[in-house]
Amino acid sequence: MAEGYKYEYFNVTFPAEYVAHVEINRPEKLNAFVEQMWLNLSAIVNRLSHDPNIRSIILTGSGDRAFTAGLDVTAASQGTLSQNNSDAARTATSLRRHIFEFQDCITALEKCEVPIIAVLHGISYGLALDLCLACDIRMCAADTRFSVKEVDIGLAADIGTLSRLPKAVGNFSWVKDVCLSARIFGSSEAEKVGLVSGVYGGKVEVVAEGLKLAKLIASKSPVAVQGTKEILNYSRDRSVEEGLRYTAVWNQAMLQTTDVKDAMLSGLQKKTPKFSKL
Amino acid sequence: MAEGYKYEYFNVTFPAEYVAHVEINRPEKLNAFVEQMWLNLSAIVNRLSHDPNIRSIILTGSGDRAFTAGLDVTAASQGTLSQNNSDAARTATSLRRHIFEFQDCITALEKCEVPIIAVLHGISYGLALDLCLACDIRMCAADTRFSVKEVDIGLAADIGTLSRLPKAVGNFSWVKDVCLSARIFGSSEAEKVGLVSGVYGGKVEVVAEGLKLAKLIASKSPVAVQGTKEILNYSRDRSVEEGLRYTAVWNQAMLQTTDVKDAMLSGLQKKTPKFSKL
Amino acid sequence: MAEGYKYEYFNVTFPAEYVAHVEINRPEKLNAFVEQMWLNLSAIVNRLSHDPNIRSIILTGSGDRAFTAGLDVTAASQGTLSQNNSDAARTATSLRRHIFEFQDCITALEKCEVPIIAVLHGISYGLALDLCLACDIRMCAADTRFSVKEVDIGLAADIGTLSRLPKAVGNFSWVKDVCLSARIFGSSEAEKVGLVSGVYGGKVEVVAEGLKLAKLIASKSPVAVQGTKEILNYSRDRSVEEGLRYTAVWNQAMLQTTDVKDAMLSGLQKKTPKFSKL
Amino acid sequence: MAEGYKYEYFNVTFPAEYVAHVEINRPEKLNAFVEQMWLNLSAIVNRLSHDPNIRSIILTGSGDRAFTAGLDVTAASQGTLSQNNSDAARTATSLRRHIFEFQDCITALEKCEVPIIAVLHGISYGLALDLCLACDIRMCAADTRFSVKEVDIGLAADIGTLSRLPKAVGNFSWVKDVCLSARIFGSSEAEKVGLVSGVYGGKVEVVAEGLKLAKLIASKSPVAVQGTKEILNYSRDRSVEEGLRYTAVWNQAMLQTTDVKDAMLSGLQKKTPKFSKL
Amino acid sequence: MAEGYKYEYFNVTFPAEYVAHVEINRPEKLNAFVEQMWLNLSAIVNRLSHDPNIRSIILTGSGDRAFTAGLDVTAASQGTLSQNNSDAARTATSLRRHIFEFQDCITALEKCEVPIIAVLHGISYGLALDLCLACDIRMCAADTRFSVKEVDIGLAADIGTLSRLPKAVGNFSWVKDVCLSARIFGSSEAEKVGLVSGVYGGKVEVVAEGLKLAKLIASKSPVAVQGTKEILNYSRDRSVEEGLRYTAVWNQAMLQTTDVKDAMLSGLQKKTPKFSKL
Amino acid sequence: MAEGYKYEYFNVTFPAEYVAHVEINRPEKLNAFVEQMWLNLSAIVNRLSHDPNIRSIILTGSGDRAFTAGLDVTAASQGTLSQNNSDAARTATSLRRHIFEFQDCITALEKCEVPIIAVLHGISYGLALDLCLACDIRMCAADTRFSVKEVDIGLAADIGTLSRLPKAVGNFSWVKDVCLSARIFGSSEAEKVGLVSGVYGGKVEVVAEGLKLAKLIASKSPVAVQGTKEILNYSRDRSVEEGLRYTAVWNQAMLQTTDVKDAMLSGLQKKTPKFSKL
Repeated sequence: MAEGYKYEYFNVTFPAEYVAHVEINRPEKLNAFVEQMWLNLSAIVNRLSHDPNIRSIILTGSGDRAFTAGLDVTAASQGTLSQNNSDAARTATSLRRHIFEFQDCITALEKCEVPIIAVLHGISYGLALDLCLACDIRMCAADTRFSVKEVDIGLAADIGTLSRLPKAVGNFSWVKDVCLSARIFGSSEAEKVGLVSGVYGGKVEVVAEGLKLAKLIASKSPVAVQGTKEILNYSRDRSVEEGLRYTAVWNQAMLQTTDVKDAMLSGLQKKTPKFSKL
Repeated sequence: MAEGYKYEYFNVTFPAEYVAHVEINRPEKLNAFVEQMWLNLSAIVNRLSHDPNIRSIILTGSGDRAFTAGLDVTAASQGTLSQNNSDAARTATSLRRHIFEFQDCITALEKCEVPIIAVLHGISYGLALDLCLACDIRMCAADTRFSVKEVDIGLAADIGTLSRLPKAVGNFSWVKDVCLSARIFGSSEAEKVGLVSGVYGGKVEVVAEGLKLAKLIASKSPVAVQGTKEILNYSRDRSVEEGLRYTAVWNQAMLQTTDVKDAMLSGLQKKTPKFSKL
Repeated sequence: MAEGYKYEYFNVTFPAEYVAHVEINRPEKLNAFVEQMWLNLSAIVNRLSHDPNIRSIILTGSGDRAFTAGLDVTAASQGTLSQNNSDAARTATSLRRHIFEFQDCITALEKCEVPIIAVLHGISYGLALDLCLACDIRMCAADTRFSVKEVDIGLAADIGTLSRLPKAVGNFSWVKDVCLSARIFGSSEAEKVGLVSGVYGGKVEVVAEGLKLAKLIASKSPVAVQGTKEILNYSRDRSVEEGLRYTAVWNQAMLQTTDVKDAMLSGLQKKTPKFSKL
Repeated sequence: MAEGYKYEYFNVTFPAEYVAHVEINRPEKLNAFVEQMWLNLSAIVNRLSHDPNIRSIILTGSGDRAFTAGLDVTAASQGTLSQNNSDAARTATSLRRHIFEFQDCITALEKCEVPIIAVLHGISYGLALDLCLACDIRMCAADTRFSVKEVDIGLAADIGTLSRLPKAVGNFSWVKDVCLSARIFGSSEAEKVGLVSGVYGGKVEVVAEGLKLAKLIASKSPVAVQGTKEILNYSRDRSVEEGLRYTAVWNQAMLQTTDVKDAMLSGLQKKTPKFSKL
Repeated sequence: MAEGYKYEYFNVTFPAEYVAHVEINRPEKLNAFVEQMWLNLSAIVNRLSHDPNIRSIILTGSGDRAFTAGLDVTAASQGTLSQNNSDAARTATSLRRHIFEFQDCITALEKCEVPIIAVLHGISYGLALDLCLACDIRMCAADTRFSVKEVDIGLAADIGTLSRLPKAVGNFSWVKDVCLSARIFGSSEAEKVGLVSGVYGGKVEVVAEGLKLAKLIASKSPVAVQGTKEILNYSRDRSVEEGLRYTAVWNQAMLQTTDVKDAMLSGLQKKTPKFSKL
Repeated sequence: MAEGYKYEYFNVTFPAEYVAHVEINRPEKLNAFVEQMWLNLSAIVNRLSHDPNIRSIILTGSGDRAFTAGLDVTAASQGTLSQNNSDAARTATSLRRHIFEFQDCITALEKCEVPIIAVLHGISYGLALDLCLACDIRMCAADTRFSVKEVDIGLAADIGTLSRLPKAVGNFSWVKDVCLSARIFGSSEAEKVGLVSGVYGGKVEVVAEGLKLAKLIASKSPVAVQGTKEILNYSRDRSVEEGLRYTAVWNQAMLQTTDVKDAMLSGLQKKTPKFSKL
């Protein structure tokens, strides 16, 4: 099953039926991202999205120290951020194209039809926030240290944190506090404001917990699960009325699935239902 | 006053001046809903909405065990969910009409001009969430067990939970967790994430608390209260700028009420103001 | 530096480099607002917004007892709220113009290019909420007593609370509870629901804390800080997709700043960067 | 088939297979509308919308002189427009409810799942515009005289013209001209600006033409026709991107119809396809 | 009445009761705009907007040759467009503030509560389009030559043409043609695509025609006229559903005007109604 | 320059400096589209979009008879439209992915940073409309026959026509007429309603005319031209206010280009400016 999912900076494994585990694998650099990495991540996720063998995904960082320290600043300072054309409009065009491409790679996580659980630990700075906010569920180890780091390198975060964070948590004052100050905060603060849905011991414990949840989700009807992800994301960004209308149009097709009958029958018979591939 | 508010599955009573109490009344089936029930609920609420004798409403479930166990799955499996036309587009049309009708019945709670307080206890699954999320204020007993149950019967919840929940609480990771896993959660978790604004002992205590709040709201100017509900719902779904504009246009009429003078004068005189019917 | 920032009801001081302190100064009336005050506040903030010497602002109330008790009801009852034309449409036009003008004064805080930290203590009623919700960060003393007071004077709050509060905190049930009941709540409730990002002792402590944060923000690149405020406010009101697009177009100009290089270099050299005026 | 479609002010006939003809029938009053009429029109259209025997509708006015002269002003001046409560806010509430009810009746034409062709002739003032703009296709006789009459009775049109006209034609300057001046304009001006898609002789000719088009539409797949109406209305009000997404979700169900195969096959065989009822 | 309306570059006169005539007055430079002019125009219009003696406005250009040749490029090239800071982000900030200020001046025409009729003749380039598109009604002399001139000076038009033109006319292909090519087009082309609602002889004729329409509008109820302008602008930018809701809330106040009764009665009595000031 | 632009079904040539000509090349089948063709078209356009040697594009159909007859129905009936899974929800998922992919290929024309001129002639059915509506400018030969053909094959058009047509022309009644009836209409009708901006003789003449316009656009500043396209598309789909804000943020970067000075100077010197590559 794992064939073809081979990438220099990522390990892709399949720890359980219908579950994929994507691990950021550059531990010697605290999993800091170079351009190849976001291109690869996007390619992996786009493929898993349509893989009929996959119903849930967990995303972790390898090594003990970091989920990811964020953008590899040394590499970036020699790349895009150093580019300079004598004409500011032409430089702007080049930068805009680059930002859009980078954003699209991260948004691939949100658009992935299959739910993704981000499991964080240790250093989780900058891009770590962009990444986990594009995932569906966030859980973290007790030692996780977060920071919306971008103002410390002279820029407004532009790969997603500033657009997704206000909709992910329930304290807009806190959102501005951490985005404007770039201060480091820990797992209990993250839990209190609603950034994560759970804090679980060390890395081993939280990865086990993430995997448990991934298995649970993978045991449900994929028609129901993928519809739920789609409608929740759609509704976050629109009025309740728009959300309801989209839901009705979505389900006019999806309620025709045999999964409904299979799930109901299994419920009555106290059996575990089996759903065909999607 | 209560005449005409007679329905097989609902008790409608008037426990205090300007306050209505709507009780779901099918305790032998854990208050599970059959189609007649949502049609009736909508009819009751639409009528209370324009009843000049009503200024606040509480919604509860009868019996000790459940606010509601949700959709009566047995009935549903013999009704809509079993329907099948040989042509998928024609089946889709029929399903879509059915979903819209069902959604409209629940949305009647949100559109009701008078605030509605949902008071939950015991089993509160599936439709219980759709219902209480369309109400204005949610409070629950300590024993309440919630579940966004729909994925367990093979479908994405389509009567409102997926559109309203992301805007009702402040932890989008948690929203996806409970919607994708269908796991049961309790009252303290509900309070922590912001699903309810209070947890109060057993059913007796929480109903008393709901009634107390309903009376407090009913003692205020109905012009002020109904405007506040309207503007909060409007603003939830739109930009701050749109909200401000709508508010100004709303209040260009409403500030002309004599309630403002009456309320101010009563405040200075430490009296309880009386407001005429709306 | 302080020249020109002289107003009857406000003290404007400059306690640190790049930091302004705006103090509401009508303590003998619990800092209650008359019309002149919101006009002045707007004028001050609009000027600070473009002042190259300012990178962050704190807003406080003078005296021990109140941030502000809200609208000066006695003054209001003799002014706008008492106005009456024999024709309801003409009265409406006059009221609408007045509301828009008042709203614009408060929205000036949100539009200010420089972040504003509201530091509350004591009585913080009615307009106190409108004001602090238009600021970026809210912190309060332990003794702060909040109330969305407007329904008690017979009207739906129309200067911003009802439009901003649902997007500022993560418990929509609680939002409706406090807006419909006008009940007083304290600092720990405010913290729990996400209205403030911190509670810090008495007035002295919380002002010191606010000033500390203001200094921290003022030490960052103003290009990064102002972009972060702008994009967060923009994104709060729109879909993630719209937020991302705006961010890319914003940063196609802003990433060209030398602040990026200066900040990166300072980071590597463990020095404090200096940024030129904006 | 016509049973049950009996109303005092409307004739409902079925001039061809799958085609309904709804005629406003109060010619002695130039088909001017009293409240009962818009309630009835809405009831008729809501029923035709789900009637499997109907695939297109034409709407005409009886008599030679008028499609409709609009609101029956004498009746209105004794009804809603005369209502007066001593409290402006309470009067406003009553007026708002009335306007919403009236708007909903007219919007029923737009929401009707089956396309409606408005065929106008003679006097077509005020409500005539509201009505025909909520229909899908507008055609008129050469003698048609239009007027957005409302400013002449002291009010801004509130039943739909001001919201739909800017999106129906391609000359916003002209829209404001006729709405602000209430001047009468004729069929060739209506055609030039895009208000109608055709002008056809006298009333007899244009009704014949409308019926011909209704029959043509009724001969197509109802799945295709109703989807086309739905998506066009949806897209008019939203961005292209939103329109495309909704279309894809709509058609994921609808492309599964056997009508596609039947239509293609009939096309190849030069036969007229038969589609089953929807 | 005319006192106070004195400006170097504008003549403000009052040719009829309730009608203002604003004339751009720099004929020796083809009415080309320097910064002072848009600041003044905005000040004039903002004041007329709330002047109870004014119910309609016409805007014309003095001299035979031009409505306006647009931005005074020589002045601009020495002003904003020449500004240069060594840091691109700081230059961007300065440019953005300048563009917003300029846009706001032109948008003042659209926000003016009283309808404005733009009467064009001769050269009408660049800013001429921005200006007239922010007015309500556009009419022109046969000799008018239009051009969306901006690409010819190396920039995308940023004061309103690109945002308003697609919503003002009914040929998006033509919009892009003239905006991308900067080609000159005449009055008959303008009429054909819907940019103007009428072409009338020479300057004298068209100004007379504009004045005639202004008088007609000024003779109507100002409550009705101003509501009509407001709702049309609101609806242009939003869905029909949003437009309808806003209209109902607007009219819950405005239908309470005595103008309705006065207008109806005058209609029955064939008299000219008199409306009190707004 | 032309290297690499080689595709089986398309000819890509470069008839003038900065101008590309993309020709649909399957004349023996009336340029009907098979899947490979829209994949290729998207690839071509995405590449031209960032090609610094290209500033405008014309899109034509080879042969005398057709721009394109639309979807190759025979191929389609053996491909996607014939697919059938026993489970309607799984079939829906597969169809939805397919529609999104197809839509994205057509939307590539709209997203292309460089303006595209569609030049139509002869048979222009179905997909011909989807294609040309995603282009910027439409012109056609006198013999062009258009049809929104989709209802005739049993489906609602889902690749863009129904979402773009209501915003491209100024007669919504006509839009519904042609979309619901699938009737064929000619070039003069297309011109009258605003679908094309010009009709020019036979195929040779109109291609020459398209090329002339492409050259004119290519002679302008690419910074100005691409910004104009971007802002027009953005504004079409949003409120004027949103359009203005986006424009200001866009131009805070773009006004810093030297093209402005170069264009102004060339204008004064009556020279043709030269702009560097973008």
